[in-house]
Amino acid sequence: MTTTQLVTQIKQKKSFLCIGLDVDLNKIPSHLLELDDPIFEFNKAIIDATHHLCVAYKPNTAFYEAYGIKGWQSLEKTITYLNTNYPEIFTIADAKRGDIGNTSTMYAKAFFEDLAFDSVTVAPYMGKDSVEPFLAFKDKHTIMLALTSNEGAFDFQTKKVDKKELYIQVLETSKNWKNSESLMYVVGATKAEYFAEIRKIIPNSFLLVPGVGAQGGNLQDVCKYGLSENIGLLINSSRGIIYASKNKDYALAATQQAKKLQVEMETILNK
Amino acid sequence: MTTTQLVTQIKQKKSFLCIGLDVDLNKIPSHLLELDDPIFEFNKAIIDATHHLCVAYKPNTAFYEAYGIKGWQSLEKTITYLNTNYPEIFTIADAKRGDIGNTSTMYAKAFFEDLAFDSVTVAPYMGKDSVEPFLAFKDKHTIMLALTSNEGAFDFQTKKVDKKELYIQVLETSKNWKNSESLMYVVGATKAEYFAEIRKIIPNSFLLVPGVGAQGGNLQDVCKYGLSENIGLLINSSRGIIYASKNKDYALAATQQAKKLQVEMETILNK
Repeated sequence: MTTTQLVTQIKQKKSFLCIGLDVDLNKIPSHLLELDDPIFEFNKAIIDATHHLCVAYKPNTAFYEAYGIKGWQSLEKTITYLNTNYPEIFTIADAKRGDIGNTSTMYAKAFFEDLAFDSVTVAPYMGKDSVEPFLAFKDKHTIMLALTSNEGAFDFQTKKVDKKELYIQVLETSKNWKNSESLMYVVGATKAEYFAEIRKIIPNSFLLVPGVGAQGGNLQDVCKYGLSENIGLLINSSRGIIYASKNKDYALAATQQAKKLQVEMETILNK
Repeated sequence: MTTTQLVTQIKQKKSFLCIGLDVDLNKIPSHLLELDDPIFEFNKAIIDATHHLCVAYKPNTAFYEAYGIKGWQSLEKTITYLNTNYPEIFTIADAKRGDIGNTSTMYAKAFFEDLAFDSVTVAPYMGKDSVEPFLAFKDKHTIMLALTSNEGAFDFQTKKVDKKELYIQVLETSKNWKNSESLMYVVGATKAEYFAEIRKIIPNSFLLVPGVGAQGGNLQDVCKYGLSENIGLLINSSRGIIYASKNKDYALAATQQAKKLQVEMETILNK
């Protein structure tokens, strides 16, 4: 998918919501556990109930790998279901991968070719030659960690490197990498005050923003400093939507929570 | 596996060799491609031919994920084969994972419980609360990236943060994390001159050292500065051993290459 197609979808749906499909068998309605593939059935119901309110889905690979081959099968069925039924949706494999060159190419093949995701999240610690192999894939997007939503972000990311915070160095350095126009960045919603500084460096790049809702981030603050000319934001919510109810009405409850965020986004976009 | 058991194995075998099982279907002998699971059959033959010469195996997950569910099955069969037939071997899932707390716990379950590896590699960028969930698992080991063997290591890892390089900050900071005695670190062999400085900070921690062989690192230099009282080194070789021959004699060729390194290690240990 091209960035233009993503922006078009955002404008049509008046939403820049991404829904995180982080499925924990301990948290889904118990009646699903009797089915052959509870994770996929849960995802399918959530997707059918929310696809008109969001523009992206983001399964975090950890939640699938934890269930071994069965989990990987659920992930494959989920992405195939999305690509078949809702091809307009932007899909994100939240995998936070990164390795030396030829190994990163294998990861890129796994997520861009075998699973056919539109994008994958990567970690910056190993530098340019660990990320550029992902950037070589046309019409695919590489979403690099910049400033994350967790407390541990202050351990290294905000430390000063040559008078600038490490995450700023990550943004500035990566702008010069080959095919860097395919880069997006992860910036946590819990750090809204940082968005103004970030937009000075990457005025137009899309930012994937976790941390609204359960983690305490505020949508209004993020949009105030983070919106770009092309919108440039994908706001992720996982638990707040997919676990809105633990009962048989979970899909309806998810619709209601997604709708609340979509309406809030529509108001912001109309301003 | 405890660190003491690993050290005992090293002393018995007079080897601190780790063999990287990074299986690329384009590089293995072509007669294997006719089999139902060429990756597992290749690994099985390599393991049977080299287990007496090394103390650890390290499959890099990228090479398995690239083949989807079939690849994940090969990984599962490989670790089960190792745990069943060679329980003395230290197993490393080279996965370079890392995510916010509850998600890292899911990754830890995937590699420590579902797949039953002894250790997993992780990335430090997201800080303490992304790594501590791995450290909570008893008798499991978390191998954190410190200074990697690739060119991109100079993009961020060696940049000065408060007058010390980032990788030094990573070492010093992580020493204070809960259960940090379960931490090991990745330090590339191509950076032998850095080992002396590293040993001042973590005199006893085990270091997983890639980059000997194909990437140009030198075993003698690494050992000169990197050996600790408890040996404290796992030297990894992947391509140099597993792709020593592309013909039907590949297992024998792997034995010969592993034997060369083991003999070199025995000489070093005898000094």
